[in-house]
Amino acid sequence: MEVDGDFNKEKLLGRSFVFEALDGQARQELASFAYVKRFKSGETIFSMGATGQSMMAIAEGTVRVSMLTPSAREITLNDLQSGEVFGEIALLDGGERSATVKALTNCTLIVLERRSLLDVLQRNPKLSIHLIELLCHRVRRSDERMIEIAFLELPVRLARLLLRLTEAAPGSADRPLKKLSQSQSELAGMTGNTRENVNRCLRKWQKAELIELRDGWLILEDRQALEKIAAGE
Amino acid sequence: MEVDGDFNKEKLLGRSFVFEALDGQARQELASFAYVKRFKSGETIFSMGATGQSMMAIAEGTVRVSMLTPSAREITLNDLQSGEVFGEIALLDGGERSATVKALTNCTLIVLERRSLLDVLQRNPKLSIHLIELLCHRVRRSDERMIEIAFLELPVRLARLLLRLTEAAPGSADRPLKKLSQSQSELAGMTGNTRENVNRCLRKWQKAELIELRDGWLILEDRQALEKIAAGE
Repeated sequence: MEVDGDFNKEKLLGRSFVFEALDGQARQELASFAYVKRFKSGETIFSMGATGQSMMAIAEGTVRVSMLTPSAREITLNDLQSGEVFGEIALLDGGERSATVKALTNCTLIVLERRSLLDVLQRNPKLSIHLIELLCHRVRRSDERMIEIAFLELPVRLARLLLRLTEAAPGSADRPLKKLSQSQSELAGMTGNTRENVNRCLRKWQKAELIELRDGWLILEDRQALEKIAAGE
Repeated sequence: MEVDGDFNKEKLLGRSFVFEALDGQARQELASFAYVKRFKSGETIFSMGATGQSMMAIAEGTVRVSMLTPSAREITLNDLQSGEVFGEIALLDGGERSATVKALTNCTLIVLERRSLLDVLQRNPKLSIHLIELLCHRVRRSDERMIEIAFLELPVRLARLLLRLTEAAPGSADRPLKKLSQSQSELAGMTGNTRENVNRCLRKWQKAELIELRDGWLILEDRQALEKIAAGE
């Protein structure tokens, strides 16, 4: 028979952003539905791809969050300690686990099931609306980061790349070269961005007459302007 | 007096992922609350930083979505055409507009106010739960992309960078160099990633004895292993 021990379930689960959306009564109610589950060192808590129906707070121990890359290599994303929470998105949407979590030591977890949360949300529409706002906050932060990567960092990085490729080109007497044969996909790979964003950026530069795109060549028309962009000006 | 014209408001607003969460009755009801608003070419529809309380669907015309960079440069994020929607996150959370939207041509917009949506959600807790699931889907996609950038692309890119820097180093007789003096922040900038992720990756390589970090130097211990990583193996 499992004994819940002396863990403050409300406090441990309260670290989750999901609990930020709840009022005192809902927190207490949900914490009372949560239960204790123990895992031995080395045991799998859940596997990537499995259907998720709960979130967990770590009362004791350490877990390792990992995933398989497309080439089946295992990478560690994070090690989580007591006081930390995981699995919140699956709690909210019942979707697949996006990573595997294993017990690195013997662990005591507080488990909150999705059906308990749904029960509370059904009776409190305001809590759902607050949860929507918190999720929007997360979407906004991600969107900002994506915009930074795509629009703020890309032009600087792409300009630097074009300058470097034309300077470093081997087998040519007159450097810097005036033209390049790299494809937009190759340039995307080298800047760590998408082909779409690279294309958008190059077309903008073509319009401003910094470069020209002709017969599969990328021709540098205004090296000085590209140097300014590369310097972040 | 504003006339609504013949626009199919339900169909136009239906392009938004918010409407995916709604049932037929809620869609009809919300569409009936939406109204037509016209803007002349060049007019600002809303400005970045303003409080948002609505989403818009474009019935006629084209709008330009732009933002100011930290250095006060204006960049165009997107041009949206008739049939497209914008401002959904502010509809859901009433937060700040994350970009400026201007009319590029004379425009007819269908406007849906946040208070109309809240009214419907208050009465239909299931719709909120569905909206939460749709937002989670978006959070998952963003998280996946962030993981790709931080964990899958970084090692390949960082290994390539270290190899390139040690090969291309000028002013040295024996190349490739065995050590580098670039800081982790510099390496982060060059790979388009954060210093934290670069540090995490380097420490992992140090543990596996591919590199060593000593007295501010980064020493390449196992060039062959780094070449394998750079090749995506």
